[in-house]
Amino acid sequence: MTVPLTAGNARVKEARKLSRRSVRTERRLFLADGPKAVEGALSVPGCVAEVFATPVAAEEYAGLLGATPVTLVDDRAMSGLSDSVHPAGLVAVCRFLEGELPPALRLLSICADVRDPGNAGTVIRTSDAAGAGAVLLAGDSVDPYNPKTVRATVGSLFHLPVLLERDPAAAVRAAREAGLTVLAADGGGEVDLFAADELLARPTAWLFGNEAWGLPAELAALADHRVRIPILGVAESLNLATAAAVCLYASARAMMSG
Amino acid sequence: MTVPLTAGNARVKEARKLSRRSVRTERRLFLADGPKAVEGALSVPGCVAEVFATPVAAEEYAGLLGATPVTLVDDRAMSGLSDSVHPAGLVAVCRFLEGELPPALRLLSICADVRDPGNAGTVIRTSDAAGAGAVLLAGDSVDPYNPKTVRATVGSLFHLPVLLERDPAAAVRAAREAGLTVLAADGGGEVDLFAADELLARPTAWLFGNEAWGLPAELAALADHRVRIPILGVAESLNLATAAAVCLYASARAMMSG
Repeated sequence: MTVPLTAGNARVKEARKLSRRSVRTERRLFLADGPKAVEGALSVPGCVAEVFATPVAAEEYAGLLGATPVTLVDDRAMSGLSDSVHPAGLVAVCRFLEGELPPALRLLSICADVRDPGNAGTVIRTSDAAGAGAVLLAGDSVDPYNPKTVRATVGSLFHLPVLLERDPAAAVRAAREAGLTVLAADGGGEVDLFAADELLARPTAWLFGNEAWGLPAELAALADHRVRIPILGVAESLNLATAAAVCLYASARAMMSG
Repeated sequence: MTVPLTAGNARVKEARKLSRRSVRTERRLFLADGPKAVEGALSVPGCVAEVFATPVAAEEYAGLLGATPVTLVDDRAMSGLSDSVHPAGLVAVCRFLEGELPPALRLLSICADVRDPGNAGTVIRTSDAAGAGAVLLAGDSVDPYNPKTVRATVGSLFHLPVLLERDPAAAVRAAREAGLTVLAADGGGEVDLFAADELLARPTAWLFGNEAWGLPAELAALADHRVRIPILGVAESLNLATAAAVCLYASARAMMSG
């Protein structure tokens, strides 16, 4: 019987360092934590470099792991590898994902300066669910390989290309070159989301802003239209992830009916 | 000039205790943290018992505070009162809100067993934005007066009644007695959200389940219909707050068109 590695083991210590962005960027490796993320990672050929599991989790998730080699670790080592308060006992070291805008793209999410890892992950998950073909993290956005982002995607990080573009204006240009109409989600927008089905039925890139300050006016101005979600109560706005969900599902619905 | 109170001051120490649910429940008081929450609290007559502010924040938010008496505290005392990593410097001690289901209710959110304070707060905020008349936290749900919940509502806690009902089945009955059609948000539901406008145009109570395990089948069975959000990609589901946003906005739209 294999003895599980402890937290002091050199391989465990090296994997732990991937919680730091600088180490991830240098090694082009990141951690996928929990069964949904590991399942997603295993579905991408060549993505998984190593799987760490506690003996209990290795048994519990034997079906998911199949013939994948597993490095057994003890609970303390797992706590160090996992970002969760209650680790599921399963963490994969993954290679950075490659990807580009797919051809015949009909729905794309562009996030400009999204800073909260949970928000970014939720937008990626929602984009996947609504049928988007890719997500573009533009400007000074959070690292998609941040453990909290990976966790919040619940596997969706591995389902569609998530691309980075430092220059938000270049992201808008790329969307337009891909044949998409660019719609900025903007509380002060001139188009009412509830009266835009014809527009929404076109191949669309949604442009979402930062969770605190929204979209800068000069960036919103680059979009083809600025679309507002009607606010029917006293709230001033929606949060980023819920606003993105409402917009993306409005597009999905219009495209299915159109 | 008034000397700001320090963290050791008895009044500050008493207010700090309101971070504990047991103390909140006993005293029927809670903390509203930050300008949006304090602004919301001040809009409810008789809600605010005391406002604590740093001298800098008292000046910055003088317009918001108007003639409200303010107890000045130093930065360390404020850190103890605030749940935020970067406190805005403004915290109100608030009295528990009273409320009941309003008459002529057209849209209601019922959350069964919502456990995450951020999720609960986001659902309250989204319900407000979508024009819901109340939110019912049913079953073993998080305390709406948890500081993280209050913060995530961004003031919406003070905009519409947020009611508690320990028995989820009683919550469903109350909704039906209020003349509402009860729709369970359920990934396996028999009704497609995209093909339900006639149903959605009726006065509606949405029933949302727990973030991890969804709605128990026996509770979903109590609803008039179970409605699924179409999943167009590879994701298995949406998270609670985004699913609620998609459902509530589908209702808002159908009601406006209907």
